[in-house]
Amino acid sequence: MTPPSTATLSRGADTTLTDQLCARFAERIRQRLLAPGTRLPSVRECARRHGVSAYTVVAAYDQLQAQGLVEARRQRGFFVRETLHEAVPRPAKKTPAPLPISATTLMRGMFQPPGAHPMPGLGTLPIEWLDLPMLSSAMRRVSGPAQIALQYGQPAGDPRLRAALAHRMADHGVMASPEQIITTVGATHALDVVTRTLVHAGDTVLVDEPGWSVEYARLAALGLRVLPVPRGEDGPDLAVMERLILAHHPRLYVTVSVLHNPTGASLSLGTAHRLLKLAQQHDLHIVEDDSYASLAPAHLPRMAALDALERTIYVSGFSKILAPNWRVGFIAAPTPLVDRFIDTKLLSTLTTPSLAEQSLALCLEQGLLRRHAERVNAKLDAARGRAVKLAEQHGCRFAAPPRGLFGWVDVGVDTERLARVMLDDGWLLAPGAIFHATHRPTSLMRINFATTQDASFWRALAEARSAL
Amino acid sequence: MTPPSTATLSRGADTTLTDQLCARFAERIRQRLLAPGTRLPSVRECARRHGVSAYTVVAAYDQLQAQGLVEARRQRGFFVRETLHEAVPRPAKKTPAPLPISATTLMRGMFQPPGAHPMPGLGTLPIEWLDLPMLSSAMRRVSGPAQIALQYGQPAGDPRLRAALAHRMADHGVMASPEQIITTVGATHALDVVTRTLVHAGDTVLVDEPGWSVEYARLAALGLRVLPVPRGEDGPDLAVMERLILAHHPRLYVTVSVLHNPTGASLSLGTAHRLLKLAQQHDLHIVEDDSYASLAPAHLPRMAALDALERTIYVSGFSKILAPNWRVGFIAAPTPLVDRFIDTKLLSTLTTPSLAEQSLALCLEQGLLRRHAERVNAKLDAARGRAVKLAEQHGCRFAAPPRGLFGWVDVGVDTERLARVMLDDGWLLAPGAIFHATHRPTSLMRINFATTQDASFWRALAEARSAL
Repeated sequence: MTPPSTATLSRGADTTLTDQLCARFAERIRQRLLAPGTRLPSVRECARRHGVSAYTVVAAYDQLQAQGLVEARRQRGFFVRETLHEAVPRPAKKTPAPLPISATTLMRGMFQPPGAHPMPGLGTLPIEWLDLPMLSSAMRRVSGPAQIALQYGQPAGDPRLRAALAHRMADHGVMASPEQIITTVGATHALDVVTRTLVHAGDTVLVDEPGWSVEYARLAALGLRVLPVPRGEDGPDLAVMERLILAHHPRLYVTVSVLHNPTGASLSLGTAHRLLKLAQQHDLHIVEDDSYASLAPAHLPRMAALDALERTIYVSGFSKILAPNWRVGFIAAPTPLVDRFIDTKLLSTLTTPSLAEQSLALCLEQGLLRRHAERVNAKLDAARGRAVKLAEQHGCRFAAPPRGLFGWVDVGVDTERLARVMLDDGWLLAPGAIFHATHRPTSLMRINFATTQDASFWRALAEARSAL
Repeated sequence: MTPPSTATLSRGADTTLTDQLCARFAERIRQRLLAPGTRLPSVRECARRHGVSAYTVVAAYDQLQAQGLVEARRQRGFFVRETLHEAVPRPAKKTPAPLPISATTLMRGMFQPPGAHPMPGLGTLPIEWLDLPMLSSAMRRVSGPAQIALQYGQPAGDPRLRAALAHRMADHGVMASPEQIITTVGATHALDVVTRTLVHAGDTVLVDEPGWSVEYARLAALGLRVLPVPRGEDGPDLAVMERLILAHHPRLYVTVSVLHNPTGASLSLGTAHRLLKLAQQHDLHIVEDDSYASLAPAHLPRMAALDALERTIYVSGFSKILAPNWRVGFIAAPTPLVDRFIDTKLLSTLTTPSLAEQSLALCLEQGLLRRHAERVNAKLDAARGRAVKLAEQHGCRFAAPPRGLFGWVDVGVDTERLARVMLDDGWLLAPGAIFHATHRPTSLMRINFATTQDASFWRALAEARSAL
């Protein structure tokens, strides 16, 4: 796969400017960075932006149309066509709402090979922050010919890892026995197993808003009705939540208590207590996603600590601290639910790959992960300091106190339009719209502090903003 | 976890005979080898079987009752109670049918640590048949500090593996470009991604019967209506299939064309052709599970070869030949469906772990897997020869010509009762009932040729049979 063409078009290259421009749009459309139905920029605007003649643009748009990627609408311009796979009829009626294109966009953006710049919209630590030697050595220690394990392994997951996870959770005040822990293919799989077990198509679930739209998309794809609860500095708005509970009888509330994505806010003890009472009163299960545990102070309250895993299901993973592709996550479950989650896990992936689990167990047992996390947090603190200063110098305002990996920033202009313009210069942003369950224009966006500590990004942003 | 207590009870051990007997039953109940609702043997029968006094049995049953694991029903004996997790109320009405206990039983049986004997009901190759040095060396080559890949990787999966898979499929006549291939966490995950994308709760799907009941359970858990089609020596009964299609308008047919589990039969070219016509006529997608590809002659016809991946979705994995816990599977999809499958994969596990994918790519590229498969097949041919001879010497009859890894054997008595008795002596069988979508007594069972080439098993079977 070639890297996305984010550089300026190059004169004197092997291909004509028209072909280059056409190829760039085609690639974006295929990667769904330009969603079906999106209007292409006007010929004049596109010509100005890329420093080419209107003739070049018209020729490029014609090529795109010939390739079936865009369609001309009379008097209105060129629009991205429904892509091939949209043309396949989906089953009528029962089809859950299609993925919000915006979620897919960001999700696919996450997997882009590195471009010219660091990615301000990145959801993980930059790869150069990870501890490659630690991971390599751990993996090699469990894959020697004498050590390598090849059998299915236990349905609940590697027993040594589950013991190490129980220890680690105790640091966060969550008391779980290894028998309550089920390993999964990352936290995403953990959330999938939990929701598939506890709710079914047509059921209602509560989520935080703003929140992680890939999670909204996942729930919608399961045929669930997703009701957003406004998320404030202390946690969810309990008054709104109670109204929604009374009106819609949801069965589940999925939330990130600590270092909530995208605001970085954490649940206060008081809100946690009242939330738990509400859940008890209305027989609601709480799914607590603690994916950012390694980046947060240990003392922050978890729902699972408060109710001792009675109606809270705790979910976490290691993509944020170990490496995105390690794909080890886990569920800590109320005892009566353990077997049901194991059954769903077996039916979805059978067991989980044990080599990654065993090498993670090693890293946990020997305190390697803890020391790595300390180094990362020191680095992140410094990066956050620099990024916050730069953001404020460039006229941006933090909508929530900056903490953890993500900042929730108000830049004063519609961030979706801003994101589209900045992508032309190779900057992938995470506009605020993709953190809302229902699409709405917003001047907020999420930044990754690790990838926004350089002045060049903020200068580019200020420029793009004033040009909008 | 301690190995299952399948040995005889031991006098003079640290624990009393009562405690030993109680622990054995408790373990079986927890592992669901004894399903809720199952009647425990009568006191007299249990005493005889274990060579203990009736008093010991009564005391053990009392202990089980005190632990809440069994309940006494007046005049009828002791019955396994609904386990803890069954006591949690499931959502009313919308709940899909619970897992057939029998499927869960076998599934959990698959994960038992090795007992005293080889497991005649095993679904995979015995661990000692695998090529540990090959796997260890491949894994170590991709996990060096200079090679280790840590980013999410491409949503579709490791590109090198996808290229190698495209080559390998061509050997089976299936022509797919790497762009049509999506890697998954084993074939189970592949089946899960495909069905979740193409059908939704309430839809109808066709399956083969007999067939793999874990697959039935997976489909049922998705809220699908599962309609079995009788599977014969040449493939599905097309007359029955057509009637079911006309009456119920299924959207999907999930099948194993080559070395069907449990019969070992493969689809004939003629049936494949007529099946494809039927599918075209009624707009049915076919999901072809080719998990046993490595154990079959390359020339056997695949549906995906016949229709050039137009309405057939091809699914396979490497648990059967590489190692159960490698957990690498894949989908080869019609081009219009590729993006939809990738979206579902992202929502279920995000990406897949790349180290296992890269090491498998190495094994494929260098022809290591092919040579390993040749060795395994030579060994399996010899084992099959021995097992078939022994089976026939002990009065068993093959209900389908013995091929591949599994034999479908008629032993002349109800195999579920037989399985229960033989488990006491440490032999885990796969009774025929678990290969049927609706529970029915049968004298058929599935044997694994690799684990039944020893006379001691057949002698034990003959004995247990005559005692029934």
